[in-house]
Amino acid sequence: MARRDGRLRLGAFLSGAGAHAGSWRHPQADADASINFERYRHYAQTLERGCFDALFLNDNVAVGELDPRVLRSSAYSLRWDPLTLLPALAVVTRHLGLIATANTSFNEPYNIARTFASLDHLSAGRAGWNLVTGLIGGENFNHAAHVSHADRYARAGEFFDVVTGLWDSWADDAFPLDKASGTWLETARMRVLDHQGEHFRVRGPLNAPRPLQGWPVIAQAGSSEAGRALAARSAELVFTAQQTLTEGRAFYADIHQRLALAGRPPQSLLVLPGLAPVVGRTASEAQEKHEQLQALVDPEAALKALSFLLDIGIDLERLPADAPVVLPDPLPLTERHKSRQQLVVDLIRRERPTARQLLARLGAGGHRLLVGTPGQIVEEMACWFEEGAADGFNLLFTHLPGGLDDFVGQVVPELQRVGLFRREYEGRTLRENLGLRYVPNRHFLT
Amino acid sequence: MARRDGRLRLGAFLSGAGAHAGSWRHPQADADASINFERYRHYAQTLERGCFDALFLNDNVAVGELDPRVLRSSAYSLRWDPLTLLPALAVVTRHLGLIATANTSFNEPYNIARTFASLDHLSAGRAGWNLVTGLIGGENFNHAAHVSHADRYARAGEFFDVVTGLWDSWADDAFPLDKASGTWLETARMRVLDHQGEHFRVRGPLNAPRPLQGWPVIAQAGSSEAGRALAARSAELVFTAQQTLTEGRAFYADIHQRLALAGRPPQSLLVLPGLAPVVGRTASEAQEKHEQLQALVDPEAALKALSFLLDIGIDLERLPADAPVVLPDPLPLTERHKSRQQLVVDLIRRERPTARQLLARLGAGGHRLLVGTPGQIVEEMACWFEEGAADGFNLLFTHLPGGLDDFVGQVVPELQRVGLFRREYEGRTLRENLGLRYVPNRHFLT
Repeated sequence: MARRDGRLRLGAFLSGAGAHAGSWRHPQADADASINFERYRHYAQTLERGCFDALFLNDNVAVGELDPRVLRSSAYSLRWDPLTLLPALAVVTRHLGLIATANTSFNEPYNIARTFASLDHLSAGRAGWNLVTGLIGGENFNHAAHVSHADRYARAGEFFDVVTGLWDSWADDAFPLDKASGTWLETARMRVLDHQGEHFRVRGPLNAPRPLQGWPVIAQAGSSEAGRALAARSAELVFTAQQTLTEGRAFYADIHQRLALAGRPPQSLLVLPGLAPVVGRTASEAQEKHEQLQALVDPEAALKALSFLLDIGIDLERLPADAPVVLPDPLPLTERHKSRQQLVVDLIRRERPTARQLLARLGAGGHRLLVGTPGQIVEEMACWFEEGAADGFNLLFTHLPGGLDDFVGQVVPELQRVGLFRREYEGRTLRENLGLRYVPNRHFLT
Repeated sequence: MARRDGRLRLGAFLSGAGAHAGSWRHPQADADASINFERYRHYAQTLERGCFDALFLNDNVAVGELDPRVLRSSAYSLRWDPLTLLPALAVVTRHLGLIATANTSFNEPYNIARTFASLDHLSAGRAGWNLVTGLIGGENFNHAAHVSHADRYARAGEFFDVVTGLWDSWADDAFPLDKASGTWLETARMRVLDHQGEHFRVRGPLNAPRPLQGWPVIAQAGSSEAGRALAARSAELVFTAQQTLTEGRAFYADIHQRLALAGRPPQSLLVLPGLAPVVGRTASEAQEKHEQLQALVDPEAALKALSFLLDIGIDLERLPADAPVVLPDPLPLTERHKSRQQLVVDLIRRERPTARQLLARLGAGGHRLLVGTPGQIVEEMACWFEEGAADGFNLLFTHLPGGLDDFVGQVVPELQRVGLFRREYEGRTLRENLGLRYVPNRHFLT
């Protein structure tokens, strides 16, 4: 396909003090990043210095596994509410896109439409919504168990329609705010949604102006069958977890095939595989850095947490340390994160790791860990980009701010030197920087 | 009762470009305040210069009346999401309390608990929650009509219990974040809520740290029977709309009687009647300012909007201009805002106004309009304070920034001169400035 301007798009997928299970214990990690705003101010400003397209904030609406051994050593029990943190970061940045994860299972579409419309105005057109169905959390929202995968996706599709319908409540020029004539609103430029669906009845209109970008940028991360189907009709950024170039190319081709079937042009969607770099001035320094991180993980706790996430009836922490993991046959159905489960299952089948080896491979939550020099990392990124596996990457930093500072200080200049990345922001809005078109209002073609 | 330090507490209840129906058309009003963040940055910083305790953000989750005549000239169709705007304002202020209205009818308690916990940390202990049941909006949240008043209050009480229970998920010292030992969390310092109630089943724990203030400050504005009952057991700030000193004293006494019955000390709650000042250097200048505002209102539209709000079957805009408003007998029951309705009904019975006169009296949404010189306004405030009708006031500015600039520039210095108001902030948190105690965790008495 056409490579646009020949440049990568880069996001940063941030959570707590880093994406690695050992992150928070790293000497260069801010253990208090989930509480201390100044940490995230620094990260956002560093990303902006590095000309990143966007900061993605990860989310969950539950602590998850409550096993004391896991809780004691794992940092996931605390997190910022993304939609509280991003408005604050909007004020201390000027160019960086601000993408919040928000789930469609435990929110109401009217509230989500409003919040993102406000964030888009607050940030002068830099908002994005990472639409997820929600991995965990039913127990905190009146559900006895977690909602089934299929039900979550059915609701998600309708949720998306309601939210985008509400964003189109007003023409862009609906509000002249003319003091002299007393015309606040041209009422003919309003459209009442009157949505009556299976999951939602929402009248509208939204009590917020149309977002500056038309719609905030829509991101999605689901890679299951249902996730890809929803992405093909709704997503503009797809955040995915692919481990090998072959997998990456296959995923990219599959999404683009679905996109074409949905009648959408190839330029309307960007695929950003996750990538967790560990940067060293030499290859061996990079290796040492990775080993240092691995040594900070409590393996029993991490394996328990991974077993909880996998949800296929294996207690990884009880397996012998030196024997390859054996998968149950048949594989039980999970109602949680089907695509993440599939990724790990594929990895076990392909590499036949022991439980400990599996842990090392999945140190960045299932995303591809890339350990090397700036040159090696740039070479790999270029290869995926040129081979049709990626339009860019969503970076996960193994620890913050260390991993981020390394990347912006060492890898970004190398990407810029070889012409793969911008030296300054081209556009004013997130859409403009990403090369995604403004979304016109379906009702009012101005 | 003991007058604490003998000083008033002041909040500013802000919405759009001002609290008056004609606000946005005023020459000194920022018509775009519902869209342009810089406006609210200025308001917040001005309030902080004026040593205000807190900025209250008003809210609604619907446009409300869709009659084109009302929509065309009224500014209420657009508003910021308070929980998007306040995090941004937290970054550009240091002392000002930040109180967001959030309803209990169309939100989930887990989400609300998280958001306010994040805001409290982001602002270093300056968050407050104005708990409302929601005046309008059912049609945007899967309800055919608006939820009944009684059902809303039953849900609100349980909602409050869940939110505060979630805030007590962790002891204040639960997270040592000790890198050396790998102890992120002392698991014995966690309490799982396991709430099973009529409206909610919420397991917990909250995936956010305990708020810095223990709990954010709880504000409430409901003055109906159910509203007062809830306030007596839960509120720390009561925002009320009383027109006369007699009404104000009666309300104050009633709330304090209920407070005592609930076993709470008198120092645990502050009553802040709403007050909309129109400040002039002379009394006649103030009168002219008020008339200027009234002239900016489209009376037919404003009367239609008032009829919608009142919801008692009168079309005020169709009544003869010169005859006193006659109330229906018997008065039909409203399912909307019972206490606001009562206030207007009382005013009609007491003053027998024409529809136009009623509109002028209610220019600030039913709150007491006080037109005068700084000295006259301070005298009235002092009288209510000393006569046991108020611990302070929640100010509504007729237009922004003009009305706010007038108050901070002319009235605040006069309040300070007579010793009724602080010259600088005493505390670090909103609670400390208000003189409200830190809320200890019910499970962990540290």
